[in-house]
Amino acid sequence: MGLSIGVVGATGAVGRKVIEILKERKVPIEKLRVFASARSAGEKLDFNGQEVTVELLTEEVMKDKFDYLLFSAGGGVSEKYAPIAAEAGNIAIDNSSQWRMTEGIPLVVPEVNPHVLKDYRGIIANPNCSTIQMMVALAPLHKRYGIKRIVVSTYQAVSGSGHNAIVELEGQMRDAEHPNQVYPKKIAANCIPHIDVFNENGFTKEELKMVYETQKILEDNTIEVNATTVRIPVFYGHSESIYLEFKEEPDLKEVREILENAPGVVVLDNPANNEYPTPLETANTDDTYVGRIRRDLYNPKALSLWVVADNLRKGAATNAVQIIEVMEAMK
Amino acid sequence: MGLSIGVVGATGAVGRKVIEILKERKVPIEKLRVFASARSAGEKLDFNGQEVTVELLTEEVMKDKFDYLLFSAGGGVSEKYAPIAAEAGNIAIDNSSQWRMTEGIPLVVPEVNPHVLKDYRGIIANPNCSTIQMMVALAPLHKRYGIKRIVVSTYQAVSGSGHNAIVELEGQMRDAEHPNQVYPKKIAANCIPHIDVFNENGFTKEELKMVYETQKILEDNTIEVNATTVRIPVFYGHSESIYLEFKEEPDLKEVREILENAPGVVVLDNPANNEYPTPLETANTDDTYVGRIRRDLYNPKALSLWVVADNLRKGAATNAVQIIEVMEAMK
Repeated sequence: MGLSIGVVGATGAVGRKVIEILKERKVPIEKLRVFASARSAGEKLDFNGQEVTVELLTEEVMKDKFDYLLFSAGGGVSEKYAPIAAEAGNIAIDNSSQWRMTEGIPLVVPEVNPHVLKDYRGIIANPNCSTIQMMVALAPLHKRYGIKRIVVSTYQAVSGSGHNAIVELEGQMRDAEHPNQVYPKKIAANCIPHIDVFNENGFTKEELKMVYETQKILEDNTIEVNATTVRIPVFYGHSESIYLEFKEEPDLKEVREILENAPGVVVLDNPANNEYPTPLETANTDDTYVGRIRRDLYNPKALSLWVVADNLRKGAATNAVQIIEVMEAMK
Repeated sequence: MGLSIGVVGATGAVGRKVIEILKERKVPIEKLRVFASARSAGEKLDFNGQEVTVELLTEEVMKDKFDYLLFSAGGGVSEKYAPIAAEAGNIAIDNSSQWRMTEGIPLVVPEVNPHVLKDYRGIIANPNCSTIQMMVALAPLHKRYGIKRIVVSTYQAVSGSGHNAIVELEGQMRDAEHPNQVYPKKIAANCIPHIDVFNENGFTKEELKMVYETQKILEDNTIEVNATTVRIPVFYGHSESIYLEFKEEPDLKEVREILENAPGVVVLDNPANNEYPTPLETANTDDTYVGRIRRDLYNPKALSLWVVADNLRKGAATNAVQIIEVMEAMK
């Protein structure tokens, strides 16, 4: 028996990627239904050679029986419809930030904290793209040495802002006079230290997501995260420069072994051969890549890493689909 | 009486910028001579409406009398010719990394440590581009609170690699198939955590320059610097995400006042109005811009900053010309 799956926000950048990855990872689907707003309802999508008609998202359809509903239609839609689906007994995997920090809602990176999904039904939150890849790389090191502090600076791709941002960067790369509509500044040949809105404490919401989601996923509110999130003119793939302070002194050889054996991690770290991850080279894959592993020159308990992953895949759609896979494996 | 000035490496990207800035800042020049290798000797340059012929760089011409010689022809040329010039009694301001860490050679950011130039003759080293802008922003804070640790991640423009890198990025922005020759990977729509060569400890030479030059300029070898230097697809202007730990707890209002009053610093920090520096908006100016000033959420002695400056100007040519200005002012 295959699964009954619904995709909410099926015509957006992440929704389309979710459908692509369901197919690619051969999730055993018996029935796929796709939902969107009135603007897209009635459109036809292809799924494994079968035509699927986009249905209008309503409260009623959320009460139908699904094994999994995957939401990627923004926080407002998730706020309204995910509780209805959950109330009806469905599992709703939500890509928005709406439910991530709500007590009792699991925030899951399948390689890191699948145990919180055991016997769970209801809303499940997919973490922020920048958080997911950082967790895949850091959780196994945290388990071994205990992370005290993370200082992270990000290099984030425009695809995280949706299809219009991709069009904006493409346009500006060809023509410097192409106007900026998605971003507050030109993004081609520039970098913008501003993702999501600013909080009164001077951090952006994107930066604070990295702080609080990390603490929730690693179940340790003592981890001190300092983030600076920056948009750069890259289409796909977020990169992160991470400085880590541990409670215990890490052994560099062991750190490499831990990362080489960590689920979802690929170590690319041989500088002598120009081997380190870059977003352009690792895009369109589901792994999280780690390179530039090195010990701090002064603090023996600190080290630096460079972490890259495809923000639309591992940072969003793949992680959501993996939540289905891990829940099915637990049955 | 005007100055007698020589520019060595006059036809390179930085050399041309040096000549432009000498003119722009109205340095009182009586005689300008320009030098280059045999490949460029004989070319004509314009300086204030006068034609200047590029002379062949030889040991002999370095022994002529100059008030200042400005070197921007790479480490090899500086290694050979700067000592000859200095031996002959000239002041040689060197843009390469050749002499920066040599004991007894002043490494100077004019806003920060002009005192080391007092009564000095000989070789003077211009710091690395990434170091200069970081020093302009951090030195006044170090003076007040004492810096314990700096964790910096850079977002560096391709112009730092010379004219061919600009051509390479331009080509790749228009055509993704345009080959990479300057960089080990494609730079358009990508970022590369690799600037200068790798050291055995896993850091690049660019990263180590930021460590040791900082300690030398601030005259404090106890400052612990951790750097990750990254090339991004920007033409002009380096950006830096800086996390700072002080010995004394800083007051955020006072930090802003210190920076607003610091020489060479412009504070652009009003997130509510999307006011923070970006390289595209601040390029082609001589100042160092600071924004995103905020206190760490956990460590009251730590704060974060975003620092941007034009790498060919303040990061190279302007700093060298300012060394002349400050030495003249000291007379």
